[in-house]
Amino acid sequence: MFVLVNLKAYACDPVAVARAASRVDSATATVAIAPQTAHLRAVAGTGVRTWAQHVDPVTSGSHTGSTLAEAVVDAGAGGTLLNHSEQRLRLADIDAALEAADRAGLQTVVCANNPDQVAAVTALGPDAVAVEPPELIGTGTPVSQADPGVVREAVEAAQEVDPSVSVYCGAGISTGADIAAAGDLGADGVLLASGVAKADDPQTALTELVDPL
Amino acid sequence: MFVLVNLKAYACDPVAVARAASRVDSATATVAIAPQTAHLRAVAGTGVRTWAQHVDPVTSGSHTGSTLAEAVVDAGAGGTLLNHSEQRLRLADIDAALEAADRAGLQTVVCANNPDQVAAVTALGPDAVAVEPPELIGTGTPVSQADPGVVREAVEAAQEVDPSVSVYCGAGISTGADIAAAGDLGADGVLLASGVAKADDPQTALTELVDPL
Amino acid sequence: MFVLVNLKAYACDPVAVARAASRVDSATATVAIAPQTAHLRAVAGTGVRTWAQHVDPVTSGSHTGSTLAEAVVDAGAGGTLLNHSEQRLRLADIDAALEAADRAGLQTVVCANNPDQVAAVTALGPDAVAVEPPELIGTGTPVSQADPGVVREAVEAAQEVDPSVSVYCGAGISTGADIAAAGDLGADGVLLASGVAKADDPQTALTELVDPL
Amino acid sequence: MFVLVNLKAYACDPVAVARAASRVDSATATVAIAPQTAHLRAVAGTGVRTWAQHVDPVTSGSHTGSTLAEAVVDAGAGGTLLNHSEQRLRLADIDAALEAADRAGLQTVVCANNPDQVAAVTALGPDAVAVEPPELIGTGTPVSQADPGVVREAVEAAQEVDPSVSVYCGAGISTGADIAAAGDLGADGVLLASGVAKADDPQTALTELVDPL
Repeated sequence: MFVLVNLKAYACDPVAVARAASRVDSATATVAIAPQTAHLRAVAGTGVRTWAQHVDPVTSGSHTGSTLAEAVVDAGAGGTLLNHSEQRLRLADIDAALEAADRAGLQTVVCANNPDQVAAVTALGPDAVAVEPPELIGTGTPVSQADPGVVREAVEAAQEVDPSVSVYCGAGISTGADIAAAGDLGADGVLLASGVAKADDPQTALTELVDPL
Repeated sequence: MFVLVNLKAYACDPVAVARAASRVDSATATVAIAPQTAHLRAVAGTGVRTWAQHVDPVTSGSHTGSTLAEAVVDAGAGGTLLNHSEQRLRLADIDAALEAADRAGLQTVVCANNPDQVAAVTALGPDAVAVEPPELIGTGTPVSQADPGVVREAVEAAQEVDPSVSVYCGAGISTGADIAAAGDLGADGVLLASGVAKADDPQTALTELVDPL
Repeated sequence: MFVLVNLKAYACDPVAVARAASRVDSATATVAIAPQTAHLRAVAGTGVRTWAQHVDPVTSGSHTGSTLAEAVVDAGAGGTLLNHSEQRLRLADIDAALEAADRAGLQTVVCANNPDQVAAVTALGPDAVAVEPPELIGTGTPVSQADPGVVREAVEAAQEVDPSVSVYCGAGISTGADIAAAGDLGADGVLLASGVAKADDPQTALTELVDPL
Repeated sequence: MFVLVNLKAYACDPVAVARAASRVDSATATVAIAPQTAHLRAVAGTGVRTWAQHVDPVTSGSHTGSTLAEAVVDAGAGGTLLNHSEQRLRLADIDAALEAADRAGLQTVVCANNPDQVAAVTALGPDAVAVEPPELIGTGTPVSQADPGVVREAVEAAQEVDPSVSVYCGAGISTGADIAAAGDLGADGVLLASGVAKADDPQTALTELVDPL
């Protein structure tokens, strides 16, 4: 399972979480940390797999305030989230941001609200898609329990369009059992956020997450 | 004069430009570099004054893909551009982003197209405003020469609203004579970009800029 | 007092509200109705003063899905709201939309959250500004009662920048006493919405609003 | 063939174009006019098939300045464009706007730049999709001639995802031969704009368009 810890704009210590993640040893789980863009270099310096939370659909040039895919690679990112429910993109911009990420050598996970949108973004050729029902984000009730059907349907929707695209799920995931349940529903990975980012002891939180896998 | 070099999303080496800028010695000019957010930490590591190109109007929390003011401070930024013509913001968001920057201890320069907009953003209480006629950006014809009236009117417009706010100008500035001319028109600083960022030898370019001051 | 009834996207009968408003007779109040753009022509057909809720910062041309100022004039609008808290605009677009409205002969009311933003939009030269604290919209608690200071400060802020610009207030206004209180605080008009639009009998609601004036 | 004439924000007489379109008689072509939202009622009054250029992804409520699907239906629209290249939407908003259109009983055509995006929007279940390479819009060179492959691939991409969804094409189409060529490539309809909207004699322009079919 791929476990992507999204630090959002939380008031946490990104390097402490990154160090904790880099120490977590699991034969079955790969952990990556997605910090603020400004924290990418410090996080990547710990040796942990590092992801961007977003890149803009631009090529190098006059784009003040944008996030260039090549710049996040320079800072140590190996992949990027796109179209997170807190950073929804225009369809044409998801397409162009995927092109930017490919050009820079970033792996990509495109988020979507529901199985129809999962099918839509799968058609754009990302490495992975992630289904995150917006109403479950931050609730503490895991999508795998609150709405297992949406995970199964997302997996089917993606496979019908392109079986080579991985499917992740997110929203409310906070325990190793949640991750295992997501795997049972056909997911290849999970997105999680506050459960780790806001934990008093991120390393214990992460170990408890990946140990049951 | 304050000289803010905006590296935008140019395909340049931000650390090389930063090193060059940190070596430029001038009794009359203060140089700062505004790189990609992902490059802030590397640029700040050179010891140069480092600025962000943008921060989002958010407080810490669930804002995936946003740029938190505190995060750019962590990475070494001391100030931020806001509302650049390539990153235009809603009025309410300029107000909230200024609040975020103040909270994090960042200095602020808010850009505007014309003297009316300069008056408008001055009313929001930034440290400085910058007038950049969009039609002159990237032309190589300096605003101080193409439209000196707009610089004078911007200075007057800002002073009428709040004399404590500094006024910069930008667009087409590439020589020390352009900067001196901007100062003669009442500007306290300039924004420039491609002239330095794309120079074969950024240090020579910067030295030629600040020497005539 | 100017009383602008914003029908937003409410599921109301805009023509019934317009007819009611056109029958309200008051020596001291001028009532206008701002319906959905698609309802402008039917509303204007009742003879009531008709306003748009928004126009886009464009001139005629290739702008599919935009709202051209001239088109809302064709449909009978005499004025337009701009930058309502539910339709926040970029600063440069408020400026350009004001230019579009002037070009088409529309009166303009630009909304703002607080006195600083009121000062900012006043500098752009609208006919009127309206202060609407977002946290009071739709609460039923009138701004004139919940936060009289914000109305007074908005009036002062606008007058300091340009005394020829009228100042309205909005948020939570639903009775004639609320309107009278707004007038006592220095406002030249009010924005209201659900109190009339959702009333079982809009004419009675409107008469009760303007009778105490 | 379905022929959708998009009047954009052109400075044309929408009622004159609508009257011309309502007089065009063709056994093989169905003509509809998509005017400014403010012009919908006047255009629908001519009896011509009338379409909106856009509806917002909202339900009735507090959405000042939005375009409610039910309001454009009230004004006489029978369908709506969505995601035109001049009005690009977030993926989640295309999904929600389709839901709004279905709820109100509007037919839907979702635009897309290329075959991948056509596949993506087809997965969201519109009545039709339209491929319009942005670089050809307004050029006068028809997509069916400049890039026939993109039309064929769009037809294939849509059919693979959902064969019940119609496929239109647009960009540069201005003659009956262009429309016939689009039909030969598998398209069920075309989007056109300036060729009719800006014609000195729209009825002659339309007759010449549909006669060769």
